[in-house]
Amino acid sequence: MASPDSPVADLAIVNCTALIDTSAGRARFAPDTTITIDQGRFVSIDTHPEGAPAAREVIDARGMVAMPGLINTHCHAAMTLFRGAAEDVAVTNWFNDYIWPMEVNVGERDVYLGTLLAAAEMIECGVTTFADHYFFMEQAAAAVMTSGLRANLGSAFFSSQGPVGLAASVAFAEEWNGRADGRITTSIAPHAPYTVSDDDLVGAAEAATRLGVKVHTHAAEDIVQTNKSLASRGITPIDVLDRTGVLEAGCIVAHGNGIVPGDIPLLAKWRDRVGVTHGPKGYLKFALGPLTPIMDLTAAGVPVGYCTDGAASNNTLDILENMRVTACLQKQIVDDATWFTSGTALHMAGPGSAAVLGMKGQIGELRQGAAADVILVDLSGFHCQPLHDIAAALAYSVQPTDVRTTIVDGRVLMRDRELLTIDRTSLLAEFRERARWITDRSHGRTIQDYTAH
Amino acid sequence: MASPDSPVADLAIVNCTALIDTSAGRARFAPDTTITIDQGRFVSIDTHPEGAPAAREVIDARGMVAMPGLINTHCHAAMTLFRGAAEDVAVTNWFNDYIWPMEVNVGERDVYLGTLLAAAEMIECGVTTFADHYFFMEQAAAAVMTSGLRANLGSAFFSSQGPVGLAASVAFAEEWNGRADGRITTSIAPHAPYTVSDDDLVGAAEAATRLGVKVHTHAAEDIVQTNKSLASRGITPIDVLDRTGVLEAGCIVAHGNGIVPGDIPLLAKWRDRVGVTHGPKGYLKFALGPLTPIMDLTAAGVPVGYCTDGAASNNTLDILENMRVTACLQKQIVDDATWFTSGTALHMAGPGSAAVLGMKGQIGELRQGAAADVILVDLSGFHCQPLHDIAAALAYSVQPTDVRTTIVDGRVLMRDRELLTIDRTSLLAEFRERARWITDRSHGRTIQDYTAH
Repeated sequence: MASPDSPVADLAIVNCTALIDTSAGRARFAPDTTITIDQGRFVSIDTHPEGAPAAREVIDARGMVAMPGLINTHCHAAMTLFRGAAEDVAVTNWFNDYIWPMEVNVGERDVYLGTLLAAAEMIECGVTTFADHYFFMEQAAAAVMTSGLRANLGSAFFSSQGPVGLAASVAFAEEWNGRADGRITTSIAPHAPYTVSDDDLVGAAEAATRLGVKVHTHAAEDIVQTNKSLASRGITPIDVLDRTGVLEAGCIVAHGNGIVPGDIPLLAKWRDRVGVTHGPKGYLKFALGPLTPIMDLTAAGVPVGYCTDGAASNNTLDILENMRVTACLQKQIVDDATWFTSGTALHMAGPGSAAVLGMKGQIGELRQGAAADVILVDLSGFHCQPLHDIAAALAYSVQPTDVRTTIVDGRVLMRDRELLTIDRTSLLAEFRERARWITDRSHGRTIQDYTAH
Repeated sequence: MASPDSPVADLAIVNCTALIDTSAGRARFAPDTTITIDQGRFVSIDTHPEGAPAAREVIDARGMVAMPGLINTHCHAAMTLFRGAAEDVAVTNWFNDYIWPMEVNVGERDVYLGTLLAAAEMIECGVTTFADHYFFMEQAAAAVMTSGLRANLGSAFFSSQGPVGLAASVAFAEEWNGRADGRITTSIAPHAPYTVSDDDLVGAAEAATRLGVKVHTHAAEDIVQTNKSLASRGITPIDVLDRTGVLEAGCIVAHGNGIVPGDIPLLAKWRDRVGVTHGPKGYLKFALGPLTPIMDLTAAGVPVGYCTDGAASNNTLDILENMRVTACLQKQIVDDATWFTSGTALHMAGPGSAAVLGMKGQIGELRQGAAADVILVDLSGFHCQPLHDIAAALAYSVQPTDVRTTIVDGRVLMRDRELLTIDRTSLLAEFRERARWITDRSHGRTIQDYTAH
């Protein structure tokens, strides 16, 4: 029992089964645990609580698993507007015939609405942090503030925009880093080595170093890009990032399906500051060929995290789904049913994905002092029963709606499936109205060309 | 408006968007449709209804898609008891070290409980028909009757049981075919060509022909099985089924990942009565190597349907999930993002899976005269919005809980997520209690050996 003069915490979660460790390919859970949270941080993860905690709010999580909030290491949140608008097409057509012409239509309000809808979707499936790479990022930041999520935001640019592209990306990163009580961090966000010049990559790396942020960029997205780079300039996209100083500055690499063996040492050299994002659902839909070499990257100590990319390619922003598809696929790809255990899958969701964003120890773990980003998952549904293996239930059985409660920075954003920061009806009404004309391509214009690289 | 003397139907679904056709790789939906159901069959799918239908019960499905109930073409329903009990192991260890020793513990009540829990799980995710292949099938039949689902039931046997195995399988098929107002159909269910003798396969085929049912068996589950068969007897497992008359009798083939090019003409010859079940989630988890050659089978006119196998390998009984994984994987495997469209995915879920069970035209379509198995799916969630492409939403975005209402044979089994035929609390209580000791392997016995084949 807490004594009358114990410090009173903001929030306590009692009676939960807590995911307390995922190292060494095994997940360890502690039953009957009490988690206390104050001022946005975990005060204690008490696996042998004595009596009731002293807290202003207490959530009884009996029958639920408490686990670190999920991390989406790379997305284009506002592209929810284009969900389903470019289906069953190859990646070249997807860009040139659909997405880049449609993106001509995207304005500031669209980015706010698209990002806010993405935030609602992510809160509903247990994502507490996302790394976003898009345009009009002040609007994305506004949606982050409205929603209460944590995010790393990068203002995307092409060198075709001229010097203003890089400059605006740097200005955004400088202005917004640390905002929203620290929930917003930033990156410099060149689109990709095939749309951004080496000079601009050098500039991005220098600015990132100066500001203490990362570069967030697409690179070696598939083996075709790698082969084109080798053919046109004799080096891989990862080598381009190395030679321009981007890796040394620290980099979030999306998506790296085209990472070849020679790239691994380059990435390993900077593994304390470089990570690779992996969202296999969309890669399969695009028939991209070989996938991110997770086993080789992991062996070299390079962090890999889950991502959903945008809803225009991945359809959902569901990290649980991408974790599950990754876990299934990795066994098949490596031809070993004992590799990539449920514990490994959960480790990549927590510390692994946190490391990709340079936030290891800050998020992705239920650990004293870390940011209090935690979700409560109900495993009592038929589809999870019986609970012979909790980690397997989380990796292979759980449904998005089993996430009952989502907490970021100690603030409850969803309580028992009720969103507390976003009004469903008004958001959907305005979002649907904008989505009606966002797919118009009759103007004949485009923002970029994919075939030239 | 229905006139006062119109015939009064049992049930009408009004204001739905109906999936009315999936041929030629495209899904067609009709808005504002009224579906009327009487005596377990669709009376009309009225895409231009005039006025309110005359029906004893009317369900307003505004904002929902009505689509054919999903079909699980191969499972071992009662194995829900073993969900999560044999994770991250190769298939040989899975059988020999876990499943077959644990199955020593399975008794009649376990099969009832395991199947009823499976039924509850399937109703919740929109499955209306399942093909089951297990033991104590009278108990599975009882669970089918309790739940209200439709099922094709086969009593599994090994030749190691002696003549009683086949005889019992035949007796079950004869006794139970057509029961439960026709919702139960049956199969003869030899386990596999590597555990059942050719003589018993011949006997199974003869009995199936006599009874007008199919043989339901595992064959060519992976390329290893095919290669072992080729090495030990010079012919493939599919060829064994052909030579023993099983294909001619009609056969549900699970899982066919080891089907080789030379097998295709054998299957194509009997394509009016043979189909292949496909449940990729479990295959990936087992790292089974090449997957069912869906493109080749489809080109040869051989039906392919979705399945979940048992929850001990697949973890869930979610056909939507296996449809989604199949759709993603097929593009990647065939190296063509334009193949296996959302429409194709939905076609395989409906007429394709129905054909595997020999029930094309009877289930799997919203069509006048067909069995009234229909589900209502809510696409208003954030993760499905905006609805630029309804088929893509169903194939790639929808969550199990978006299935709001499940109807079998015109009877509502789940209404707005409330199960009407199964009591959740009492089922879970007894199921969990049995599941506690079902995994005991201390007895040192087993029901079969996998390594010898």
